[in-house]
Amino acid sequence: MNPVNEQAEHLDQVTITNVTITPVAFKDPPLLNTVGVHEPYALRAIVEVHTDSGVSGVGETYGDAGHLARLQAAAAALPGTDVFNINELRSRMAAALQHDQVRGGHGMSGMVTGSSTTDRVLSAFDVAALDIQGKLLGRPISDLLGGAVRDTVQFSGYLFYKWSGHPGQNDDSWGPALDPAGIVRQARKMVDEYGFSALKLKGGVFAPEEEVAAVKALRAEFPAMPLRIDPNGAWTVDTSIRVGKELDGILEYLEDPTPGIGGMAAVRREVGMPLATNMCVVSFSDVAPAIAAGAVDVILSDHHFWGGLRRSQSLAGITDTFGLGLSMHSNSHLGISLAAMVHLAAATPNLDYACDTHWPWKDPEEDVVRAGTFAFDKGSVKVPTGPGLGIELDRDALERLHLQYLECGIRSRDDTGYMRRLDPSYVLQSPRW
Amino acid sequence: MNPVNEQAEHLDQVTITNVTITPVAFKDPPLLNTVGVHEPYALRAIVEVHTDSGVSGVGETYGDAGHLARLQAAAAALPGTDVFNINELRSRMAAALQHDQVRGGHGMSGMVTGSSTTDRVLSAFDVAALDIQGKLLGRPISDLLGGAVRDTVQFSGYLFYKWSGHPGQNDDSWGPALDPAGIVRQARKMVDEYGFSALKLKGGVFAPEEEVAAVKALRAEFPAMPLRIDPNGAWTVDTSIRVGKELDGILEYLEDPTPGIGGMAAVRREVGMPLATNMCVVSFSDVAPAIAAGAVDVILSDHHFWGGLRRSQSLAGITDTFGLGLSMHSNSHLGISLAAMVHLAAATPNLDYACDTHWPWKDPEEDVVRAGTFAFDKGSVKVPTGPGLGIELDRDALERLHLQYLECGIRSRDDTGYMRRLDPSYVLQSPRW
Ligand SMILES: [Mg+2]
Ligand SMILES: [Mg+2]
Repeated sequence: MNPVNEQAEHLDQVTITNVTITPVAFKDPPLLNTVGVHEPYALRAIVEVHTDSGVSGVGETYGDAGHLARLQAAAAALPGTDVFNINELRSRMAAALQHDQVRGGHGMSGMVTGSSTTDRVLSAFDVAALDIQGKLLGRPISDLLGGAVRDTVQFSGYLFYKWSGHPGQNDDSWGPALDPAGIVRQARKMVDEYGFSALKLKGGVFAPEEEVAAVKALRAEFPAMPLRIDPNGAWTVDTSIRVGKELDGILEYLEDPTPGIGGMAAVRREVGMPLATNMCVVSFSDVAPAIAAGAVDVILSDHHFWGGLRRSQSLAGITDTFGLGLSMHSNSHLGISLAAMVHLAAATPNLDYACDTHWPWKDPEEDVVRAGTFAFDKGSVKVPTGPGLGIELDRDALERLHLQYLECGIRSRDDTGYMRRLDPSYVLQSPRW
Repeated sequence: MNPVNEQAEHLDQVTITNVTITPVAFKDPPLLNTVGVHEPYALRAIVEVHTDSGVSGVGETYGDAGHLARLQAAAAALPGTDVFNINELRSRMAAALQHDQVRGGHGMSGMVTGSSTTDRVLSAFDVAALDIQGKLLGRPISDLLGGAVRDTVQFSGYLFYKWSGHPGQNDDSWGPALDPAGIVRQARKMVDEYGFSALKLKGGVFAPEEEVAAVKALRAEFPAMPLRIDPNGAWTVDTSIRVGKELDGILEYLEDPTPGIGGMAAVRREVGMPLATNMCVVSFSDVAPAIAAGAVDVILSDHHFWGGLRRSQSLAGITDTFGLGLSMHSNSHLGISLAAMVHLAAATPNLDYACDTHWPWKDPEEDVVRAGTFAFDKGSVKVPTGPGLGIELDRDALERLHLQYLECGIRSRDDTGYMRRLDPSYVLQSPRW
């Protein structure tokens, strides 16, 4: 115990003894994107790292079968490591994954395929190790990352085209959004409930003209709101340039209109507004080619595939150094990831935009973090000030969501497969328009 | 006290109460470089940061008058800051230095002029804050930086042309080195005493042919030793290309043969071996232009002007991402700086070369760190494992070296002025050959 602030004796090595990996499933609405539609359950893996000190820490990551196999392989390499030595954790798991033969299973729905396997696996262990460090030291993770520059972190409201409910199930509380009016209705509800002061539309679902109309309808309803659209590379270069010109002055940035560094660079030469990406720059090896090509203005970081919190800070140092903007990407996630995102965002001075989050799409009853931990106020979440992540694992809830995982039958995210089962004529195509 | 590893209570905010800045002077031999010769004393400033916890931390930086004035201005802005919030420290001192009118005084002898004022000032405070954090937490600084990937850090033997002693003083123990034989003699003594397994020659003093002969003499004496030469931009592009071709296959890298990003890029297009710099890339704002121009292969980091240990790690992330090598630069320094360099080097996986140090040129009797803290074995220094920097300030020695500062009369490093007083015909010129 270290309730008084005195010089500490040298802390004994705190050694990782074992790791528990628990796949969970939580309900997810039928959110549409250019590769299909979200299945009725989203998968995550909850990683618990245990130490010989008796203190444990948690991390959250993708729950797909292939990723689970890699997590297990990495976890087996960690016992005996000092939990303060994240560099050692990383090199051990890089060695464990060196001959990785698992195909796919990164949980990112075919839209973030080039990310580094090691960094994708490291992330949850990095977060768990920092959670343990913070708990042992009596300090929030934001302090271990250099200190919070903000007490609250702003998020954007993440709008999706969607059906009223999953086929064969009751309508969800959000109702349908399949046209500009539906998107505006959804945005109004989200802004009223969460107070978001920026909005992002997941596009690539309908023809570009319809999505442009939705953006313009949002602009009419929310005259001062920063707006973004992200069609996940569904457009050709020509379509992207046409849409980019039409929405110039309306969007704060245009996210991944077209696939690839070359395509993005071609669009960027013709379009005035900033281009953002979480698709063509998804690992450190993409950074130099993207900068050389002049492909993007803003990188959406994501600690889940950039190797955890420290390496995401390294990315932030790069964007700062190269005059790029920095925003934050999200997949469907639970509260552990939210806490980690908030600590990282708080300790990143050059985070220039409200972060993405799928949070409003999650059933408030479903989380592995004790209920009531997070509250959105004016679109923002308070940075936890307790030791480590500053959250408490709800073991009953973890067990419930794990049972749900066992029962739901989904083992890998497959938006396209689900769509095809519902609509056999559905064809995956990129770019689509 | 936290001798047992249990989950800690939330540590109260640890607030900076005040800062003590003590300029010191220590004896320095007449080491020659392209802008003149080292004066009889080198200056440093010892920064002590005090907190309301009773725990203090130390940092070391340049001791020039202009830099001292900036340190004082920065220090005045820090009381009340949480010592865990280095981001807040940095923004406070950036504000305090915003209207900085002090000219010069960075202590780097006209050879590192473009470095960021804020980062140069931040550095010693960053180190002191991390020293305090480590002491409070019972952990070495290397742990706070992600964990040591090595137990010892390798340094290179730093060879200088030199006179036998300062004019009017007795010869020093090293004797003269003014030709290839003298350099080889010096190298042999340094390798015998310290065990270095890499050697660097400070060039730019004699005509390139003579320095090439010295490098070749070193190669003959030490057939397998990695060798470097650093003329501090004393050569034209043409001369650099000529020398670079002649020494290709003999040097592990050629350091700053010619001034400026453009000049270095022109040399690099013609010379096969890696080019290194601590002159044309000295701040984050230099990185993008240098990479775009293809100016360098290796960046020599230096936490004293890159904004401390965390920001130096950010630089390491950049060199890793862009496929650049990373080495470490040194000015004349004392043991606090050595400890900080060692922790940083230990926690930087992609440090590719033995670090520079002026350590052998310092009188072993003169330091502000308790005598016997550091020992070189096979050219390497053990990474301290005690809390924080893992060193102990010797207050009597600090007082002695401060008195020496007061008495020595030197207030700003001036290698050129000293040389001109000794040789009025001396002319500063860059490039010189
Ligand atoms: Mg995206
Ligand atoms: Mg140099």
